[in-house]
Amino acid sequence: MTRRHLLSSADLARDEVEAILTTAQSMHDVQRREVKKLPTLRGRTIINLFFEDSTRTRSSFEIAGKWMSADTINIAAKGSSASKGESLRDTVKTICAMSVDALVIRHNASGACHQVAQWVDASVINAGDGTHEHPTQALLDAYTLRGRLGGSLDGRHVVIVGDLAHSRVFRSNVITLGRLGARVTVVAPPTLMPSGIGAWAARDGFATAWDLDDVLDAASPGDRPDAVMMLRVQRERMSGGFFPTEREYTAGYGLTRERLAHLYAVVPDIPILHPGPMNRGLEISAEAADATSSVILEQVSAGVAVRMAVLYHLLAGSDAPSEKAEAS
Amino acid sequence: MTRRHLLSSADLARDEVEAILTTAQSMHDVQRREVKKLPTLRGRTIINLFFEDSTRTRSSFEIAGKWMSADTINIAAKGSSASKGESLRDTVKTICAMSVDALVIRHNASGACHQVAQWVDASVINAGDGTHEHPTQALLDAYTLRGRLGGSLDGRHVVIVGDLAHSRVFRSNVITLGRLGARVTVVAPPTLMPSGIGAWAARDGFATAWDLDDVLDAASPGDRPDAVMMLRVQRERMSGGFFPTEREYTAGYGLTRERLAHLYAVVPDIPILHPGPMNRGLEISAEAADATSSVILEQVSAGVAVRMAVLYHLLAGSDAPSEKAEAS
Amino acid sequence: MTRRHLLSSADLARDEVEAILTTAQSMHDVQRREVKKLPTLRGRTIINLFFEDSTRTRSSFEIAGKWMSADTINIAAKGSSASKGESLRDTVKTICAMSVDALVIRHNASGACHQVAQWVDASVINAGDGTHEHPTQALLDAYTLRGRLGGSLDGRHVVIVGDLAHSRVFRSNVITLGRLGARVTVVAPPTLMPSGIGAWAARDGFATAWDLDDVLDAASPGDRPDAVMMLRVQRERMSGGFFPTEREYTAGYGLTRERLAHLYAVVPDIPILHPGPMNRGLEISAEAADATSSVILEQVSAGVAVRMAVLYHLLAGSDAPSEKAEAS
Repeated sequence: MTRRHLLSSADLARDEVEAILTTAQSMHDVQRREVKKLPTLRGRTIINLFFEDSTRTRSSFEIAGKWMSADTINIAAKGSSASKGESLRDTVKTICAMSVDALVIRHNASGACHQVAQWVDASVINAGDGTHEHPTQALLDAYTLRGRLGGSLDGRHVVIVGDLAHSRVFRSNVITLGRLGARVTVVAPPTLMPSGIGAWAARDGFATAWDLDDVLDAASPGDRPDAVMMLRVQRERMSGGFFPTEREYTAGYGLTRERLAHLYAVVPDIPILHPGPMNRGLEISAEAADATSSVILEQVSAGVAVRMAVLYHLLAGSDAPSEKAEAS
Repeated sequence: MTRRHLLSSADLARDEVEAILTTAQSMHDVQRREVKKLPTLRGRTIINLFFEDSTRTRSSFEIAGKWMSADTINIAAKGSSASKGESLRDTVKTICAMSVDALVIRHNASGACHQVAQWVDASVINAGDGTHEHPTQALLDAYTLRGRLGGSLDGRHVVIVGDLAHSRVFRSNVITLGRLGARVTVVAPPTLMPSGIGAWAARDGFATAWDLDDVLDAASPGDRPDAVMMLRVQRERMSGGFFPTEREYTAGYGLTRERLAHLYAVVPDIPILHPGPMNRGLEISAEAADATSSVILEQVSAGVAVRMAVLYHLLAGSDAPSEKAEAS
Repeated sequence: MTRRHLLSSADLARDEVEAILTTAQSMHDVQRREVKKLPTLRGRTIINLFFEDSTRTRSSFEIAGKWMSADTINIAAKGSSASKGESLRDTVKTICAMSVDALVIRHNASGACHQVAQWVDASVINAGDGTHEHPTQALLDAYTLRGRLGGSLDGRHVVIVGDLAHSRVFRSNVITLGRLGARVTVVAPPTLMPSGIGAWAARDGFATAWDLDDVLDAASPGDRPDAVMMLRVQRERMSGGFFPTEREYTAGYGLTRERLAHLYAVVPDIPILHPGPMNRGLEISAEAADATSSVILEQVSAGVAVRMAVLYHLLAGSDAPSEKAEAS
């Protein structure tokens, strides 16, 4: 794998996805040690440039970098030159002129990371750009699902539910899960379906649906869901006329206690995913969030290992990670 | 000592307090070197999770962690998932799912750290929770006092003055100083006495008073103060009707130039403590803050050593610190 | 060089400036390596204390410290004790009581760093104080110019253009460039000339002018500019009555496309500098900013090397940097 950037899940062919997930497995082993430290990226510099707030993604990348001995620097857009009217291009070119090796970017504009990658020599990693993509999230979701579903996602049926119109998590997931051979059905109320999703679904090979109970309660065994991923509702969108009330959203699209019980009757111990932060009581009930089949915290744990693997593949060259001894 | 958390000063028996203070002494020696670095916590990850602003406590923990070679990550509540409506429980469980070893928490809710400790596997260190406790502050105060008062606090008389009703520093100090055999008298105007302090004083064995000059000017030699600790007045409480004017507070409870002169006549070179940040001219005069017997900066210096010692005892297992060689 | 602080460009004699720039050259070589890491400042602690927002200067110092293996801690004034009403003196004395080795300060008050240096034992580095000075910026500008102009600035003519009244970059540059034997002409509209600049120019040996085209279009070859430095216009000053409109400022003092073409006709490939962040279209056109002779990103790159050199000279004692082997 000789890739420089990770901008979109679409960039990664199946073998690249699998190479990253295999490396992530080694990294997860490191993560379980008492001494979590590899010398792999010593003397490399990683900038976390976040134009939007984030706890988990920023921390996850920062921890991944530090465990690999990289120098990591956080730059928040608030308090940055961007707030002094500097253009994004000048901001990133300036930062990268400091001989930076990788730029991890979160930005509110869809496509920002692709633009940045045109401008700089550093590796650019998309940590979420607008409603476009969040490729490391899709990788960690795939990693988590593989761990729970016996190693292969071929022919497995993953149901993704929620605000598809505004979800970069959904966009990256349909691609990466598709690469790994999974069948994906996405479910949303009509007002939260992206426009033109039909053509897109045809091209990328996923199904769409409006009725969550129909999907979860599939009559034929081949249609039964193997995993369900609930997306975060951004409450600030509630006022945008996308759906009438929170209660109505929950009734139709939340993983409520009743819906969970029903689902368990069909597929016992079905893995439940959520990218966080959760709105408990809105898109996911406490019972579902804390169910024994919930893998929400496993996703977070996998996030560090997957980001280590991505940094490894982009920055550490072609050596197999197993060749790297632990730092003295 | 096989403790996992440091949540309250009450958790620590006298021998534990003394073990930490002894370790802090070794750490203070490291701190005086040109090369301040121990390999002790290499490959361990410490999160500073601050829901309230702090310069000195956060920096002190960050420096302590870095000098011990830990990876330290700062998360401020502003810009965190908490600001997106995530519950405290989900926030800390998410952070700790990243294989974090210790969580240093400051939170505006009294008791928050105890709750967090129920939820996570990481070591939890209370860096100030509401008006409840601030146990590392009490440890550094005890460390500083022992240094100034000849090594033992047995029978020594410490006077703590100020806004007791809202002070976590006071709450932790009466416990830790009591453990070490000190006599404590706390002084506050009636409106700034916590309700129910009488029963509490009886249980924990400290005295209460309203008249500062009476306490400082003790007639019998056995009552003479050996140290005086001024607490910070939070100006935002002034409007809460707790006391009429700043001038009146200073007149009754400030360590003014006149009061200091009087105090020095009774106990020359009495150590003066303040947890900072100081309101010069309000609870403490410039003359007292900068007096040769002021140990306010020694408290700050001790803070790093004490926090290294706490991290050592919670994270580094049972090896004696002296066995640890300096990193190559 | 046995200097403890870097407060003002005036502190540095010519041989000190040259020693720093020579060290910076070695540091720049490190910066070009894949593994950017020196053991030089291992076990030393550097605080970046920023009372004003900054991306490039703070990041540049943070990277410089980390590449030299120092522990670096960022403290932003927002969220600091300063916001709780603590005095600057107490804030810096508190921070330095934690056995800090260097304090990198940016403050909105001119002269703040000189004051701080009176109060603390740590090395103080001025990273910009009000409209007073920004000495590392002048050093990196000199480093960049020497690289482009053949190694020596003796007799070279540097033109500095813009809001001189509010520019600490200008103030530090006239001193450092003067030390290195350069001739400097500063150009600004009358309303943006500092009062009393005449006496000052006489003392420090630089020329002043109001008409940019006159200066750039010098009739005699000896007057021809060898480099031009555009200063940032702070848009918030536009409302202060300093100049009528942005368009008028650009017409008279911007490095427009037309002015650049004219300048290139006189001096092909003249180096163009700007301290950033740029207001494209105001003080500098896109054509000038992105011209092949623009060294704006080289300035940023040099900034890390120069700051490493400054930290080296202030903290690492008198050993030559070449003697230091890379860390194992």
